Amino acid sequence: MNAPAAKLATGVPLAQALIAESFGTDRGCLVIGGFRVPDLLAAYGSPLYVYDGDVIERRYGALARAVEGFAEVYYSIKANPNPAVARLMVDRGAGLEIASGAELRLALRAGARPERILFAGPGKGAEELEYAIAQGIGEIHLESFEEIAAVAATARRLSRTVDVAIRVNPAAAAQGGAMRMGGKPAAFGFDEEILGEVADGIAVHPELNLTGLHLFAGTQILDADVLLTQWRHGLGLAAQLGRHAGRPLGSIDLGGGLGIPYHQGDASLDLARLAAGAARLQTERRGDPLTAAARIVIEPGRYLVGPAGVYLSTVRAVKVSRGHRFVIADGGMHHHLAASGNLGQVIKRDYPIVAATRLDAAPVSPATLAGPLCTPLDTLARQTALPELATGDALAVLQSGAYGLSSSPVGFLSHPMPAEVLVRDGTHTCIRPRGDFDAPLVNLG
Amino acid sequence: MNAPAAKLATGVPLAQALIAESFGTDRGCLVIGGFRVPDLLAAYGSPLYVYDGDVIERRYGALARAVEGFAEVYYSIKANPNPAVARLMVDRGAGLEIASGAELRLALRAGARPERILFAGPGKGAEELEYAIAQGIGEIHLESFEEIAAVAATARRLSRTVDVAIRVNPAAAAQGGAMRMGGKPAAFGFDEEILGEVADGIAVHPELNLTGLHLFAGTQILDADVLLTQWRHGLGLAAQLGRHAGRPLGSIDLGGGLGIPYHQGDASLDLARLAAGAARLQTERRGDPLTAAARIVIEPGRYLVGPAGVYLSTVRAVKVSRGHRFVIADGGMHHHLAASGNLGQVIKRDYPIVAATRLDAAPVSPATLAGPLCTPLDTLARQTALPELATGDALAVLQSGAYGLSSSPVGFLSHPMPAEVLVRDGTHTCIRPRGDFDAPLVNLG
Repeated sequence: MNAPAAKLATGVPLAQALIAESFGTDRGCLVIGGFRVPDLLAAYGSPLYVYDGDVIERRYGALARAVEGFAEVYYSIKANPNPAVARLMVDRGAGLEIASGAELRLALRAGARPERILFAGPGKGAEELEYAIAQGIGEIHLESFEEIAAVAATARRLSRTVDVAIRVNPAAAAQGGAMRMGGKPAAFGFDEEILGEVADGIAVHPELNLTGLHLFAGTQILDADVLLTQWRHGLGLAAQLGRHAGRPLGSIDLGGGLGIPYHQGDASLDLARLAAGAARLQTERRGDPLTAAARIVIEPGRYLVGPAGVYLSTVRAVKVSRGHRFVIADGGMHHHLAASGNLGQVIKRDYPIVAATRLDAAPVSPATLAGPLCTPLDTLARQTALPELATGDALAVLQSGAYGLSSSPVGFLSHPMPAEVLVRDGTHTCIRPRGDFDAPLVNLG
Repeated sequence: MNAPAAKLATGVPLAQALIAESFGTDRGCLVIGGFRVPDLLAAYGSPLYVYDGDVIERRYGALARAVEGFAEVYYSIKANPNPAVARLMVDRGAGLEIASGAELRLALRAGARPERILFAGPGKGAEELEYAIAQGIGEIHLESFEEIAAVAATARRLSRTVDVAIRVNPAAAAQGGAMRMGGKPAAFGFDEEILGEVADGIAVHPELNLTGLHLFAGTQILDADVLLTQWRHGLGLAAQLGRHAGRPLGSIDLGGGLGIPYHQGDASLDLARLAAGAARLQTERRGDPLTAAARIVIEPGRYLVGPAGVYLSTVRAVKVSRGHRFVIADGGMHHHLAASGNLGQVIKRDYPIVAATRLDAAPVSPATLAGPLCTPLDTLARQTALPELATGDALAVLQSGAYGLSSSPVGFLSHPMPAEVLVRDGTHTCIRPRGDFDAPLVNLG
C-alpha cells in the first residue's frame, strides 16, 4: 500500500489503482483491512458497508502534515456521521464541523470538546442554536441576517457570549477543479460584496463576538492550484474584514471541497503540490498583521473518508434481456444513492465497481448492475465491464466512505438497513447493527 | 371540491387547480381536510407531511368504479408505506402489492388477508421469500430463473404449493404517456419473447402453480389510451401463455403506472376515457375463453395517494444574493428527494409549490426555495413565482403523497424526521411522530 499522498498509478483502471492504494487482494477476492470480503459478508450479512480505519487515519495524517503550520484539519461530519468514524478523527486531534443539532450531539458523544466544533448551515433552527450555544460551541457560522438576530436573541436569553464567523459566498467559486470568476447567487452565507454591512450588523449585538470568516469554496475539487487560489482569496477577505473591524480576526475557515477520483481519468489531488502552496501562503500571511496570528482551519469530509469505504452486495440473479446482461444484486440505491447517479449528478457515471470475488476473472461483456428495488432508478452501473458472475458472488462499490449510507433513501421500498463495519489494526467491529429484514427503520410497523 | 375523475381546469396555474380539486383556502391560507396549515404546523411541528384520507378514498373509489367489472384495484404500498395509509386502502377493499419482506409485514398489520397480497421485485431475498410463503401470500411474481428455483426450493422445504405469476418485460413499453415500440432490455421480469420457455421452467416444479401474468407497463402515464393499449397487450399475452399452458390463467396483473400531473401543462388522467376503454376490453375478453374468467388486477400507487399529500415547511430566512432571491426553509431534500429533482428526473422541474400562508398575495419576483441542508442540492424550487415571504411563513409542496418521505434520504445531515398526519372526516391524527431534533433516525448516537 502506498501513502495516500502519492498519485494514483496512471494507465491502469481506476478501480485497480484504488485497490492498490488502500486495500488488497487474495485469491481473486478483495481484501479490506486484512479481511477477505466473503468473510466479512459471512460475519455481518449482505449488503454491507465497510470502512478501513487505518486508511482514514493515514489520509488524515497525510493531509494534516501537508498543511502543518498553515492550517488545522477539521472533519466535516456530514460526509460520514457514523459515531465511530467521527471518534477516529477526534482521537487523532481533529476538530469537527457540524451542520445540525444531531451532528452536534454526535460530535460530543464522539468525544469532541465543544470549543473544537464549528456549526455551519444555511437554515439553522431555534432548537439547534439553543443547544449549540448552551453547550459552548466553538463558533457559529452566520448565514443570514435573520440568523444574526436569532443567535443574538438566544445568547442574550442564555446570558452567553457567542463566537461567530461570517460565512462568505465568494465572488469567485470553484467546482470540480474549475475556477468560475464572478461568483454565483447562492443560498449560503453572505455575498462578499456586503461583508462590511454584515460585520456592522453583528457589531450591534454585544452577545456576538465576531471572531472569524468562513469561505465556501466549492466541492469535489481535484486540482491543488484551485484550492490554493481559493485559500489565498479567503486570506485576502479575512484581512479586508479585519481592516473593517479594526482588529485581526481570530479564525479563518477555508472550507472543505477536497475531492477524490470517482471516474476513469479523474486526477487524484496532489498533496505535495498542496503542501508547497500552503507553505507559500503561510509565509505570505505571516507578513500581514491582519492574518498573521489567525487560527486557520480546513474542513474536508469526503477526502478523509471516501476512499476508506466500500459498499458490498451479493448477486441474486443474472439475466440477459434482449441481448443485454443484467446482474441483480441485493444492494442498491436505497443504501447508496450517489452511486446510482441520483445525488445531484448531471450525468450519471458509474462509481468504480469490481466483482469482489472474481478479481482475477476477465470481463466477458458489459453488464448493467441493478439493485433489488422495484424501480429502474435502482441501477448502480450501466454497461460496465464485469466478469462472468453468478448468484452468491460479491460486488464492491469503491470510494463509498463519504455520502454513502447517510445520504441515501434507506426506507425506499422498506428493505433492512445494512450493517456498518470498521476494520482497523487487524480487527473488525460492528459500528451499526444490521436491521431486521422485516422491520426497516422508516416504517412504524 | 370536484370529483377526482374530472379534468383539472385548464388555463389556471397547476397549483391553483390542484388546490381547487382536493383542498381549500381560508383567509389566504391553505386548508387540508378542513384544517388551516398554520394550525396543523402548530400542532405537529414543522416540517410536516399531511395526507388527506378523504381525498385518498375518493380517488380509490373513482378509480375502482372506472374499472369496475373489468379489474380490481390493488394498492402498491411502495408509493406510501405509512401503515395508516395502507389500512385506508385495505378498509375500502383494496388488495396490496408489496415489494419487500417489510412491506409484507406492513400489509399484514394493515389488515390485508395474505391471499389479497401480491409480491413483485427483481431481486427478492431468501428470508423474504420464506416469510411470504409461510404467510400464504396470494401470488409471487417471478422475475428470474434463479428466483423460480429459489421459490420452488423454499416451497418444498415448507411443504407448500405457491401460486406464481410471470412478470413480463413487454415488447412495447410506455413512459409518461408515450408508447415506445420495440421493448427495451430491463432488469425486471422476463422478456415476452421467452414466455413459453419460462412457463416450461416453472412447470417442472410441482410446488409452483402458474396462476398468472404480470405486465410491467411503464410509469407516470397520463394518457388513458396508452394505458388501454398496454392493458390490451397484457390480455393478449395472457391468452398466449394460457394457450401454451393448455389452460387459462387465473389472474392477470396489468400493473400500475397511472400518473398524476406534476408540472404546468401536464394532463390529468382521463378516468371517463379509461372507464370506456375498460368496458370495451371487458367485452372483448369475455369472448376469449383464455381470458374470460381471469381475475384482472391493476396496482397503482402514485395515482391513489400522490394528490392527497402535502409537504409543509416554514421559512427561516429570506435573502438576496447577487440580485437573486432565496427563500430558506426548514424543509428540504432530506424529506422530499423527488421534489428536489434528485429522484431520477432527467430535467429538474419544480413540483407545484405555494406559499401556504400567503395564497392571496401576488408573486413579487422569482425565488429559489432552498432547504436547511449544507449542500446546493437542497433546492425545492428554482426561480419560481412566490409572493413576499418572511420568517414564519409556510410553504406547501403539493402532489407529495407518493414517493415523498419514504423515498428520501432522511438521515442526510442528521435532521429530525418530520411527523406524518392523516386528516379525515374532520379529524387529524398523528400517524408518525416527529423525531427528536437531536436524535435522527440514522445515527446510532
